[in-house]
Amino acid sequence: METSQQLVSQKKYVYMFHEGNAQMKDLLGGKGANLAEMTRLGLPIPQGFTITTEACNAYHANGKQFPDGLKEQVEQALKELERITGKKFGDKENPLLVSVRSGAPVSMPGMMDTILNIGLNDETVEGLAKKTNNRRFALDCYRRLIQMFGNVVLKIDHEKFEKELERVKEIENVQYDQELSEQALSTVVNSFKRLVKQETGRDFPQDPMEQLYMAIKAVFDSWNNKRAIKYREVNKIPHNLGTAANVQVMVFGNMGENSGTGVAFTRNPANGNKELYGEYLMNAQGEDVVAGIRTPLPVSKLKEQNEELYNQFVEICDKLERHYRDMQDIEFTIEEGKLFILQTRTGKRTASAAVKIAVDMVKEGIIDKEEAIMRITPEQVDQLLHPRIDPNAHYEVLAKGLNASPGAASGAVVFDPDSAEKLAKSGKKVILVRPETTPEDIHGIVAAEGVLTSRGGATSHAAVVARGIGKPCVVGCEDIKIDLEKKRFTVGEVVVSEGDIITIDGSTGEVILGAVPLTHPELSEEFKTLLRWADDIRKLGVRANADTPEMAMLAIKFGAEGIGLCRTERMFNAPDRMPIMRAMIIAGSEEERKKQIEKLRPMQKEDFKEMLRIMGDRPMIVRLLDPPLHEFMPSPEELLNEIFVLKEKGKKDDDPEVVERKRLLKRVKELQEINPMLGHRGVRLGMTYPYIYEMQIRALLEAAAEVIKEGIKVNPEIMVPQVVTAQELKWVRKMVDRIKGEVEREYNVKIPLKFGTMMECVRACMRAEDLAKVCDFFSFGTNDLTQATFSFSREDAESKFLPMYTSHGILQHNPFQVLDVKGVGKLMQLAVEWGRKGNPNLEIGICGEHGGEPNSIKFCHAIGLDYVSCSPYRIPIARLVAAQASILEKRGEKLYQEGAD
Amino acid sequence: METSQQLVSQKKYVYMFHEGNAQMKDLLGGKGANLAEMTRLGLPIPQGFTITTEACNAYHANGKQFPDGLKEQVEQALKELERITGKKFGDKENPLLVSVRSGAPVSMPGMMDTILNIGLNDETVEGLAKKTNNRRFALDCYRRLIQMFGNVVLKIDHEKFEKELERVKEIENVQYDQELSEQALSTVVNSFKRLVKQETGRDFPQDPMEQLYMAIKAVFDSWNNKRAIKYREVNKIPHNLGTAANVQVMVFGNMGENSGTGVAFTRNPANGNKELYGEYLMNAQGEDVVAGIRTPLPVSKLKEQNEELYNQFVEICDKLERHYRDMQDIEFTIEEGKLFILQTRTGKRTASAAVKIAVDMVKEGIIDKEEAIMRITPEQVDQLLHPRIDPNAHYEVLAKGLNASPGAASGAVVFDPDSAEKLAKSGKKVILVRPETTPEDIHGIVAAEGVLTSRGGATSHAAVVARGIGKPCVVGCEDIKIDLEKKRFTVGEVVVSEGDIITIDGSTGEVILGAVPLTHPELSEEFKTLLRWADDIRKLGVRANADTPEMAMLAIKFGAEGIGLCRTERMFNAPDRMPIMRAMIIAGSEEERKKQIEKLRPMQKEDFKEMLRIMGDRPMIVRLLDPPLHEFMPSPEELLNEIFVLKEKGKKDDDPEVVERKRLLKRVKELQEINPMLGHRGVRLGMTYPYIYEMQIRALLEAAAEVIKEGIKVNPEIMVPQVVTAQELKWVRKMVDRIKGEVEREYNVKIPLKFGTMMECVRACMRAEDLAKVCDFFSFGTNDLTQATFSFSREDAESKFLPMYTSHGILQHNPFQVLDVKGVGKLMQLAVEWGRKGNPNLEIGICGEHGGEPNSIKFCHAIGLDYVSCSPYRIPIARLVAAQASILEKRGEKLYQEGAD
Repeated sequence: METSQQLVSQKKYVYMFHEGNAQMKDLLGGKGANLAEMTRLGLPIPQGFTITTEACNAYHANGKQFPDGLKEQVEQALKELERITGKKFGDKENPLLVSVRSGAPVSMPGMMDTILNIGLNDETVEGLAKKTNNRRFALDCYRRLIQMFGNVVLKIDHEKFEKELERVKEIENVQYDQELSEQALSTVVNSFKRLVKQETGRDFPQDPMEQLYMAIKAVFDSWNNKRAIKYREVNKIPHNLGTAANVQVMVFGNMGENSGTGVAFTRNPANGNKELYGEYLMNAQGEDVVAGIRTPLPVSKLKEQNEELYNQFVEICDKLERHYRDMQDIEFTIEEGKLFILQTRTGKRTASAAVKIAVDMVKEGIIDKEEAIMRITPEQVDQLLHPRIDPNAHYEVLAKGLNASPGAASGAVVFDPDSAEKLAKSGKKVILVRPETTPEDIHGIVAAEGVLTSRGGATSHAAVVARGIGKPCVVGCEDIKIDLEKKRFTVGEVVVSEGDIITIDGSTGEVILGAVPLTHPELSEEFKTLLRWADDIRKLGVRANADTPEMAMLAIKFGAEGIGLCRTERMFNAPDRMPIMRAMIIAGSEEERKKQIEKLRPMQKEDFKEMLRIMGDRPMIVRLLDPPLHEFMPSPEELLNEIFVLKEKGKKDDDPEVVERKRLLKRVKELQEINPMLGHRGVRLGMTYPYIYEMQIRALLEAAAEVIKEGIKVNPEIMVPQVVTAQELKWVRKMVDRIKGEVEREYNVKIPLKFGTMMECVRACMRAEDLAKVCDFFSFGTNDLTQATFSFSREDAESKFLPMYTSHGILQHNPFQVLDVKGVGKLMQLAVEWGRKGNPNLEIGICGEHGGEPNSIKFCHAIGLDYVSCSPYRIPIARLVAAQASILEKRGEKLYQEGAD
Repeated sequence: METSQQLVSQKKYVYMFHEGNAQMKDLLGGKGANLAEMTRLGLPIPQGFTITTEACNAYHANGKQFPDGLKEQVEQALKELERITGKKFGDKENPLLVSVRSGAPVSMPGMMDTILNIGLNDETVEGLAKKTNNRRFALDCYRRLIQMFGNVVLKIDHEKFEKELERVKEIENVQYDQELSEQALSTVVNSFKRLVKQETGRDFPQDPMEQLYMAIKAVFDSWNNKRAIKYREVNKIPHNLGTAANVQVMVFGNMGENSGTGVAFTRNPANGNKELYGEYLMNAQGEDVVAGIRTPLPVSKLKEQNEELYNQFVEICDKLERHYRDMQDIEFTIEEGKLFILQTRTGKRTASAAVKIAVDMVKEGIIDKEEAIMRITPEQVDQLLHPRIDPNAHYEVLAKGLNASPGAASGAVVFDPDSAEKLAKSGKKVILVRPETTPEDIHGIVAAEGVLTSRGGATSHAAVVARGIGKPCVVGCEDIKIDLEKKRFTVGEVVVSEGDIITIDGSTGEVILGAVPLTHPELSEEFKTLLRWADDIRKLGVRANADTPEMAMLAIKFGAEGIGLCRTERMFNAPDRMPIMRAMIIAGSEEERKKQIEKLRPMQKEDFKEMLRIMGDRPMIVRLLDPPLHEFMPSPEELLNEIFVLKEKGKKDDDPEVVERKRLLKRVKELQEINPMLGHRGVRLGMTYPYIYEMQIRALLEAAAEVIKEGIKVNPEIMVPQVVTAQELKWVRKMVDRIKGEVEREYNVKIPLKFGTMMECVRACMRAEDLAKVCDFFSFGTNDLTQATFSFSREDAESKFLPMYTSHGILQHNPFQVLDVKGVGKLMQLAVEWGRKGNPNLEIGICGEHGGEPNSIKFCHAIGLDYVSCSPYRIPIARLVAAQASILEKRGEKLYQEGAD
């Protein structure tokens, strides 16, 4: 024991700021290393010293006793500070005052923060008063010390000090602390001292050394307080890091008219412009700037007041920015005409400023392109792409639902899709409000600025459609009670009628009465530059999921290299197609069904031609029809209700309208499934009703032939959904080859065409090698694949038990949002390996929602996919993240989080 | 060309029977090799020769020309036959007649069969007449030749010959061919010859050699006829095998009273007794025995008629049986007192005969135990285990449904489970007839002899329950219209009322009015012996899926080594438990829910005690509750209907009965799921309502403790359903460990306990290594795993597209019946490998329905599972097949079919 303690006593526990540097974070903590680094740079830092994290650990190991030698080293360091400042700790004439702050190797809220003005007591306070010629100021410093020390070190309830202060303010009849007179502050000091005695049974320590040691112990103790331990557990920070304690000379901005304090950013944090941006106040302390009693001046004004000092500050800012290679947020104080830098840190900034600063810094030679790309987060890109509520706007929230699709929108309330479409055509902005939406509402969703529903979750129809087309959407807003008949909704007492203006924020789920100012997205030149750099660096291709010409154009605008998934459902359930589709479904004979389906061919051919013309020679993957037939039919409830209404009108059972409804009902019931997600859909449906696929394939290939004849190069690709065996794929391929031959002969053109399969069933992954032999590409449909791998029905899981799973830590993320690397990802990895074995030229992509999610994109890069495909609005994110993945890989850094076991 | 033809001409194309043997199947075809083998054994075979499959292939390669040298070799062989028989081919006095038959290396229907009596013409027919002193016989032979030759070789429509024959019979005014006079047959011969001339433009060939060569060509040609090609395609038989042609001397059993013909089995094919069993007729041909004009005599009578010949036959039978090491089915002919063996083949037999013969032959030293085990098919075992309709019974089928659970049963029709139970208790046999069944009908199903439903498929509730408890069941019998109110069902005009007797056959789906004689299963001594041998040989353990004490006892009776799956649903939905469970589900507070659930504990403890006492120290795996809560509730339709009825009775909305129903309805709707198969069930439910699992675990462990205190050793195991992450398993394991500690302290006993997981979700397979670290065993739930791997909802798939998939050859089998080796099996194989890596002592079994399916059992053996678990009624099959798997593995033979790509 003794030996080891003696060994420990040899340790260096105290470092003067000038002895350390930025690399010594583990030993000096983040703050200590930073102060050392700034000192090393020759900046005017109030000097001080750091007590190491090792000292903290030794203290705890030692039953909360300072290790041997620590006190000697602290006293040595204090002497050094006295030498530097010419002041003396505890001196009655010219007292040295210090602050004590904690500082762990990783930033960690929950620990003790700061105690200022250590060194003041009944005697030194008078010395300070004389020296500054300001007794009021000295007393204020003293009462602050007692208050902070009493609360943080002596654990006296903060409220109790506040109460005392209030009492004096009442007597003095003033409102703000600053208005207290010298006399009143003297009263406060005495009352605070009484409070300390009363609460602790001891006087407030008058010995400055005792104050200092007690403060240091409080810092060390705070490492193990409940909040800090909890924070470390949640964030998986080791408990044995320990915290350092920083002791620093106090400087005062309120020592008179040639003192002052301020905060400045080295660039404009709102727009990124290269200009000093900040404010200062003379004869003031930091709190005064915040309190807003006096209006601070823009930092440029300092030039007029003290040009030399201003120039010194500008030079320091520039030095700091170049040193830290990023925009800095700097706190400074002027004490009697002398500039001190108190703190510098990377400055927070808006998304657009982040992009501009990163790109500018590349141009200025401060950072390289890779660094610029790594500095922008996917969340920032997301912010840039959606309208948002102006951060400066004030508003009241009427109701709150689930944030289903990001962005904000204002508009007049409408309650049905037809009105939405009509009003939108007349130039009015509308918000579609529905209990929930169905495929028949799509034209209304497209027409509206945003969608609000009272029912449904993050995967309800409204949410999925809105996300797909990038409209703001709030769902499951149960506070609003919709009365469709009266065309209004109510929230408590508030009634919102058709035509009233509301604003919804799909990023927060908020619903607001009236219009709120919005900020609109812009692809700035800098942003475009950054994404071009990303394109040069990334290996992963980026395509879009796009079903309409509008989305295809948007995708190209955002930089998509092709369409990775064009769903064809819309070509069947658009308002002009639905009646034909239903006639097909209820037809009594195969002949009749074929006849009906063929009616869709010319329509769909035009759809495809439009898309192909837009995409040109970019690849365009068309997925053959996927959903089960009952999705094209009304629900049994709807039909029963219609029959009921007809009967109430006096119609008989043999009335043709009733008969028709009953016939429909019978077919709908036949089509019902117990588990529709695992039902009669995709290629299974295609093989049951081959004329549907036949029609789609022919429509696409004829469209391609006609567009080629227009002189436009095209690259259509056909993708088969829900495949589980090579046999299915062979069956469709045979049909495709036959029709291609026929169309090519008919039009006398060669059509370039690729053929591939969705990988969305587990068996397809298991059979990847054989499937790959029959096709040109795989595209992972990770939405369905996740459902099958987990045996989770997404909608049921998200509403019933997924929240419990993430809150219990069973899963780290909702696997429908963030790809489950260890389960679904492992399956994908096997399928990639086996698929490439079966066909070395196989092209592999992903078209599930995960294709636009950052961690998932990085995983896709890691397992060697050729491209990701996502919603057009996620394209810029995908371009950026794909580049980040390449950079991380090059650097040998970890690419992605693995998630649940 | 010439050179290769010359080389070919060196080949030996013709083999006398005495030149070949059984191993030369590829060259001589099956029939040729067999005839050679019998000749080699010294049996009295009508001699002949075989033209090889190579000759056939050369013929086709050569543009349908005989290869060089073939004719010379045929003529050489004919000479040899003339030498052996003393007859001459084409001789007017003593003509040699031959038959020509095809015979491929594999048995193959669809090819030309036989032409008899080749060598007859207008001249030799008279020689035959003189020689046999029977002109009528000779003419009959001649007209048969023309008819067969005309049809098979000359392709004249069979109908045309029949019409001619009919015409003569009409003129002669006779009904049967045999009644035709000599004169009339002469007329027939002439009319047939005219027909040939008329149809082919050529006379019927009078040259015997020409007849022979044309017949051989016809055999070769038939290899490539449409039916044969189709058959080879379907059965994946290579097209280049070719067929041999067999030319064999004719013998006649109708040459007089010392001629005759017969068929005999070397053992009794009905019961397996070791006795000659068969019939014969003197002065007759094979057809006469079949035609049934004269009654044949039992073969034992032959002894009286011709003891020497009889003894010779007995000796031959014995020789053949020992040679082929199996019971033989032998055709013989006596020509003028001389015995000829025409054919011998393995005799068909009943399942019980098969078992007896196999076991007897081991005892007689003819075969070894492994051979005996390999000779019994799983289908035969299945036959032995269920009552069947007496194969000799005559009956009329009233209606036909799906064969959902094998076996037959007769009983009085009842339409509700309570009546079924009541009547059964009074000793009456009943058949429960329902539109479909629900968990509330279980006591009725248990009480009934069998179940008949008008709706539902092979996986409907009725089907699953009936199979599980081994009751015959016919489902989806849409022909029957059930009127529950009037307690009757109708099939067309037929009305079947409550109490009327019907018989159902769950092996065929047939429904029969009235009682039909049944044969009842018996575990014969031989069968038990065979299964004991199987037990000695197999490596795979065999356990039963058993939920009740009755099933547990049955399982032990059938040889189960433990329970691989005890589902606990019954312990919640039995009639006395259901109200408690429902009260739990609709309870407003967690406290109330816990209170309700705890009411079940003493009941379930008793359930477990009963089971544990029966199982003793055999392992007993208890699966914690799996199904979603809505399965314990009435359906919304039922509740809506009840509310409707109450209102019709004048009850108001605030009537307590109505309020209660509405409250239930609200909860039921909350519990509804879009894809219940992938919903809130298994461990997900267990974690949401932890007190359910807590109660189950405590009930089991208290039961174990109390049974141990009774002096009985027990081995309970706890299994968690629907697991997808190691975290879930850890969560349950923690609960189990805690409760086990509590119970052990309380009772002061040590409880042996294993803890494991179902492997029924794909993600569990992917994470097998991590899961294995947290548990003692895996049990593959291949029903759910197959659904998830294919993304097929079983019920939807079987009713909507699986039949199309198997008929299109996309899949070879319904993967819910036969384990999908290449998909689900591959996943299992990976999980086994990874699981054993995580825990080398891991015990791995299977408890899905596949555990009782032969191909699947063999696959389980191949991937190294420790045991299979299946329905008690499948236990004997599993024991047998597991032994077969061991034997096949030892022999290095293929264990299982791989199925779909």
